[in-house]
Amino acid sequence: MSRFAGREGPIRLGMVGGGSGAFIGAVHRIAARLDGKYQLVAGALSSTPEKARESASALGIPRSYDDFTAMAKAEARRRDGIEAVAVVTPNHMHGPVAREFLKRGIHVICDKPLTATLAEARRLQQAAEKADALFVLTHNYTGYPMVREARALVASGALGRLRVVQVEYPQGWMAAPVANKQAEWRNDPARSGAGGSTGDIGTHAYNLARFVTGLKVEALAADLSEFVEGRQNDDNAHVMLRFEGGARGMLWCSQVAVGHENSLRLRVYGEKGGLEWAQETPTELWHTPLGEPKRLITRMGAGAGPEAARVSRTPAGHPEGFLEAFATIYSEAAEAILAHREGKAPPEGVTYPGIADGMEGMAFIDACLRSSRRNAAWVVP
Amino acid sequence: MSRFAGREGPIRLGMVGGGSGAFIGAVHRIAARLDGKYQLVAGALSSTPEKARESASALGIPRSYDDFTAMAKAEARRRDGIEAVAVVTPNHMHGPVAREFLKRGIHVICDKPLTATLAEARRLQQAAEKADALFVLTHNYTGYPMVREARALVASGALGRLRVVQVEYPQGWMAAPVANKQAEWRNDPARSGAGGSTGDIGTHAYNLARFVTGLKVEALAADLSEFVEGRQNDDNAHVMLRFEGGARGMLWCSQVAVGHENSLRLRVYGEKGGLEWAQETPTELWHTPLGEPKRLITRMGAGAGPEAARVSRTPAGHPEGFLEAFATIYSEAAEAILAHREGKAPPEGVTYPGIADGMEGMAFIDACLRSSRRNAAWVVP
Amino acid sequence: MSRFAGREGPIRLGMVGGGSGAFIGAVHRIAARLDGKYQLVAGALSSTPEKARESASALGIPRSYDDFTAMAKAEARRRDGIEAVAVVTPNHMHGPVAREFLKRGIHVICDKPLTATLAEARRLQQAAEKADALFVLTHNYTGYPMVREARALVASGALGRLRVVQVEYPQGWMAAPVANKQAEWRNDPARSGAGGSTGDIGTHAYNLARFVTGLKVEALAADLSEFVEGRQNDDNAHVMLRFEGGARGMLWCSQVAVGHENSLRLRVYGEKGGLEWAQETPTELWHTPLGEPKRLITRMGAGAGPEAARVSRTPAGHPEGFLEAFATIYSEAAEAILAHREGKAPPEGVTYPGIADGMEGMAFIDACLRSSRRNAAWVVP
Amino acid sequence: MSRFAGREGPIRLGMVGGGSGAFIGAVHRIAARLDGKYQLVAGALSSTPEKARESASALGIPRSYDDFTAMAKAEARRRDGIEAVAVVTPNHMHGPVAREFLKRGIHVICDKPLTATLAEARRLQQAAEKADALFVLTHNYTGYPMVREARALVASGALGRLRVVQVEYPQGWMAAPVANKQAEWRNDPARSGAGGSTGDIGTHAYNLARFVTGLKVEALAADLSEFVEGRQNDDNAHVMLRFEGGARGMLWCSQVAVGHENSLRLRVYGEKGGLEWAQETPTELWHTPLGEPKRLITRMGAGAGPEAARVSRTPAGHPEGFLEAFATIYSEAAEAILAHREGKAPPEGVTYPGIADGMEGMAFIDACLRSSRRNAAWVVP
Repeated sequence: MSRFAGREGPIRLGMVGGGSGAFIGAVHRIAARLDGKYQLVAGALSSTPEKARESASALGIPRSYDDFTAMAKAEARRRDGIEAVAVVTPNHMHGPVAREFLKRGIHVICDKPLTATLAEARRLQQAAEKADALFVLTHNYTGYPMVREARALVASGALGRLRVVQVEYPQGWMAAPVANKQAEWRNDPARSGAGGSTGDIGTHAYNLARFVTGLKVEALAADLSEFVEGRQNDDNAHVMLRFEGGARGMLWCSQVAVGHENSLRLRVYGEKGGLEWAQETPTELWHTPLGEPKRLITRMGAGAGPEAARVSRTPAGHPEGFLEAFATIYSEAAEAILAHREGKAPPEGVTYPGIADGMEGMAFIDACLRSSRRNAAWVVP
Repeated sequence: MSRFAGREGPIRLGMVGGGSGAFIGAVHRIAARLDGKYQLVAGALSSTPEKARESASALGIPRSYDDFTAMAKAEARRRDGIEAVAVVTPNHMHGPVAREFLKRGIHVICDKPLTATLAEARRLQQAAEKADALFVLTHNYTGYPMVREARALVASGALGRLRVVQVEYPQGWMAAPVANKQAEWRNDPARSGAGGSTGDIGTHAYNLARFVTGLKVEALAADLSEFVEGRQNDDNAHVMLRFEGGARGMLWCSQVAVGHENSLRLRVYGEKGGLEWAQETPTELWHTPLGEPKRLITRMGAGAGPEAARVSRTPAGHPEGFLEAFATIYSEAAEAILAHREGKAPPEGVTYPGIADGMEGMAFIDACLRSSRRNAAWVVP
Repeated sequence: MSRFAGREGPIRLGMVGGGSGAFIGAVHRIAARLDGKYQLVAGALSSTPEKARESASALGIPRSYDDFTAMAKAEARRRDGIEAVAVVTPNHMHGPVAREFLKRGIHVICDKPLTATLAEARRLQQAAEKADALFVLTHNYTGYPMVREARALVASGALGRLRVVQVEYPQGWMAAPVANKQAEWRNDPARSGAGGSTGDIGTHAYNLARFVTGLKVEALAADLSEFVEGRQNDDNAHVMLRFEGGARGMLWCSQVAVGHENSLRLRVYGEKGGLEWAQETPTELWHTPLGEPKRLITRMGAGAGPEAARVSRTPAGHPEGFLEAFATIYSEAAEAILAHREGKAPPEGVTYPGIADGMEGMAFIDACLRSSRRNAAWVVP
Repeated sequence: MSRFAGREGPIRLGMVGGGSGAFIGAVHRIAARLDGKYQLVAGALSSTPEKARESASALGIPRSYDDFTAMAKAEARRRDGIEAVAVVTPNHMHGPVAREFLKRGIHVICDKPLTATLAEARRLQQAAEKADALFVLTHNYTGYPMVREARALVASGALGRLRVVQVEYPQGWMAAPVANKQAEWRNDPARSGAGGSTGDIGTHAYNLARFVTGLKVEALAADLSEFVEGRQNDDNAHVMLRFEGGARGMLWCSQVAVGHENSLRLRVYGEKGGLEWAQETPTELWHTPLGEPKRLITRMGAGAGPEAARVSRTPAGHPEGFLEAFATIYSEAAEAILAHREGKAPPEGVTYPGIADGMEGMAFIDACLRSSRRNAAWVVP
């Protein structure tokens, strides 16, 4: 029996992190708001109490806390307390914050990567598995309709047995030394973890490949670089992948690829066809069946299936954005949370990344680091 | 002194039209919600009272009315009544509904085209000009950051004196007879007005060209068609344009262009350069300065200016969507509404389409019809 | 019985015009050479005898003439004289030169537009119809394999009854006053004819639309401009088209569209589908069948038909160029010339533009000028 | 003193291999013909004498030989003998054929890869170094103008010190078992060599990266696959690269990537900018300078440099093709051959791939095989 049984209306949401100047906190807030399924009512938006209060006030959040433990305790006690919390701190705080809420039965929607260290990830995993609460990880790219379509295409067998998986996520914003808040903590292993580009964007690429293909990675060989002087974490990674069943692949992530903004791209080739999807033109999915003309499938366009339609809000031709895909993760989570109120499983089709995806991401980062230290030897992630 | 002087918090919003099954009502609701500046508290969502109530209940809207006049009266009397209303009915009702609210000092955010007839448009114009309330028309494409950038580029003189303006808006969804609700009222002159594709999408194209170039159209010559049997309004229009100052252009809109979804596209050429923007890849703006390599400017990317940044929510590389551009119109309107509370002008830079744009759109439709009836003679819009 | 009956080996070719510094002469020479079906053996490459001789010598052409009449006479007398002549002079000389060779039974391969004036065109038409020699007009874009594919697609009925035809050919190279040889004669009505952009590139666009759709134009309304100071001929044209059977269209050609190089593009929409082809990515043809995903057909790729394969030289993925399409016109002509040696019709499938296409182009230019002088009234081309 | 001193006119060319049904022989013939600098006068087009004779006759080649040794001897003795020979046999015959001509002072233009085995490559290298004749290897992609432009851009320092090099060459034509002549010998290690996709297309990718960046590869780690049953040579290769000076890269080549035709693509990132070039849109080069809008440079367009112009034949906007790039290799070789007649060095700027490039390609194949056998260990190529 859920402690939120009987609740009605929008899900009351809290937020930890995301004070003024943060990028991802604002994204989470919009994502929560877009479909009208959440109401943000409490926050510990900064580890600096005054900043936390000012941020909450500026955002019109009724209840502001000076620290997340106090928040967890107080909210858990309230009859109208939060039902879910968004964790948008730097990576090293994900675990401590999330555990505080999970143990009180409050659902957690957490930014990625899961944590800064593998040890901390394991602690969080245990907490998540023990808790009577959901743990949602915002691998937001899986919220794009055409990513759902791609997964359905693979699952349908349209590509046949898979052979080759190419995934990449180049960015250019850290090509020169960067001195803003976003770059600073990402380059501090204590806060970000030991993975640089691998943790920040490589995990997204890895998760996307896993999500669409469904294939496990049996081994990887990684060659990491720190190109910019003073950089402590990798800012470029070349990774060779071996999947179960014999498929092979490559993953490239980079934060020094000048000219790229957020160029996540996945290409999959099987015996009977190929597919290609790119985040910067997310409405399009290329499907190339063997021996037939190339097909460009568009969101809600002719030939697009129900999986993409389930998470679409507008007809074809209305470009979807990053925020809408992010909102879909929130709304999928909302479906699961509402079902949880009544002790039920989420409705059919509801899909969101969870603790297992987070653990896989951590294993990926760890494997990349281990492999690279051993001169790109094959390791098991 | 505004009747809403002293109000705080999100703007209380009502909605007329937009019951279940409607497309644009849902878009307006998301747009209003996205930036957290509105709260939807009342509605007359359908002209069928039962459907109105059911829709309001399903959407969690607290106050449902059976008809818009009752709504206008009741809300105007409430201390916590709505401050603004979204009008998302079929075209013929825009005027009657909007006037009912305007005359009570309630701001109106109205879908386009302005009305079904020019006569009705003039009545609405008078009402809007007399009212102590804002009138906002959702020519939503002007909410795209790179459309703002394009306008700034022209205004900066970077293109020099303009010569040629090519704008087009092809769709394909009405290529065969369509039997859904969206198509039905669009094909009924009594509800849609006498313009078909000209009114539904031609006005968007016209508005976009006007918005970016700033040039008035002095004359146009239009050749309208009804290709699909049984269609009463035009489903394809070819229009030649003559702008003040000597620039020439073409406008093409179509709802029978199979293969197109929502392919609004603008190209402008001046003495010193050209630009190109397309709605289906809205994050990109091509700028082609005379004698230099082509430049691809991206939202928040290198070289993009403050006008685009003002209406952006995320860093470069995070594709923006239709809903975000639409939300920008709502948020620009919110800025103006908040300033109006205090009897002030909107903050610098705030830009949204209003009654004058609506009148221009109506004049465009009317001119197209007049010209086409006279075998594409030149007429003044 | 052909006067060249019994000849063997490559076709002996002459050239009039195309001396050093000319653009199109060099293109014709490469086109003639590419498939090895011609041998250039004689020329009157310039109206300045010395320049003619120097050019011929530099190009290794064995026989140089000071003027084209002398050349026609001498070559016609030789046992090893030329069998065909390429006419690559400015427009006003096409007719006089071509007639001189046609009347001696020498095949003519002539650049477009046909002539500088309609009167001259009619004289040439008579000469061509009377002569026992072929007249080939290098509307080279019809040599692209995917243009052949597009035509076959329309002819197959895959698009159903046609409704809308959009064709455009923007260039930007004359956006500022241009002082080179190419621009100079194009801007001299005496040499170029009264059509500017209409004659130089509009005729190509018109021919392409005609070639692919097979539809005759019943009426057109044209609005021509001369944007650059000192320009005597149009440098921009907006044209509305009405085709037989009810299809409507637009043609835009411009030489002041900064940022465009040679952006010939055709889009055709019918009841059952659409197609799009662009000269700058000539290997691709979009086919958008109603109710199905968009298809990208590539030269020699899956789903491409025999018409494109007939004029292809390499497998899929090897981009074809302008020169190859131009060479195809030469090679199609060669097939016809070889058949003519034996008094036969060309082999099945052989297709090249001829005198009728030339006359249509002239009628198009003339109609544009007549219409524009009458304020874009509808005229019959 | 060259044995061809004093010759004039086009270079007399012979061909070994390339009989009817061969793909690459026809390409070489067009390439030789396109710029009019060669004349094909002799051939041993097949190892089957009858087929050799029939092919020569069909092509109008005056002198046909039953075997290449006889051809080399006879031609070397003739006063009007060939000055150069094109070697277009399967890989295992490149060496034996080329040596036969080189030792007689006849220039060799040879298809790639250099030979089928490293041992044979070394023999050919010795022969080439000893001979008073040129050895040209048709790594044809270096003939594209925008590849020249890319190289010049890197050399100019516009990208700064290089960091990341991504090159790929996916094809899909061997995704299913293929039973034609092209596929057959490629899958026979005795004729093709031990490299499959690595030899056939990986060498092109490797050469392109080397050509543009100028950087040597210090080590590579390769993971090769044979996905299609019965395939003896690799049909997919993932390779990590380490360049001198610290740059890192990846090379992917595949013949089972369904949906790709000939998708050679290079991306280079340095401290100050990036570039991207793709073979299927060869006219375009992206240059992305740090902190500035992306630039699209086009062949002969604004901002393109003299290196691209040197090897261009038409103005901007006239798409260039595969055959034109291939012809450029022939024409560059012709420049060198003409200079060699007079004992001179080639004119400034003349660039073509030679024996050293061939040896590098062989070392690449060999290194890939060695690395893959050792589970993708790093090896020195």
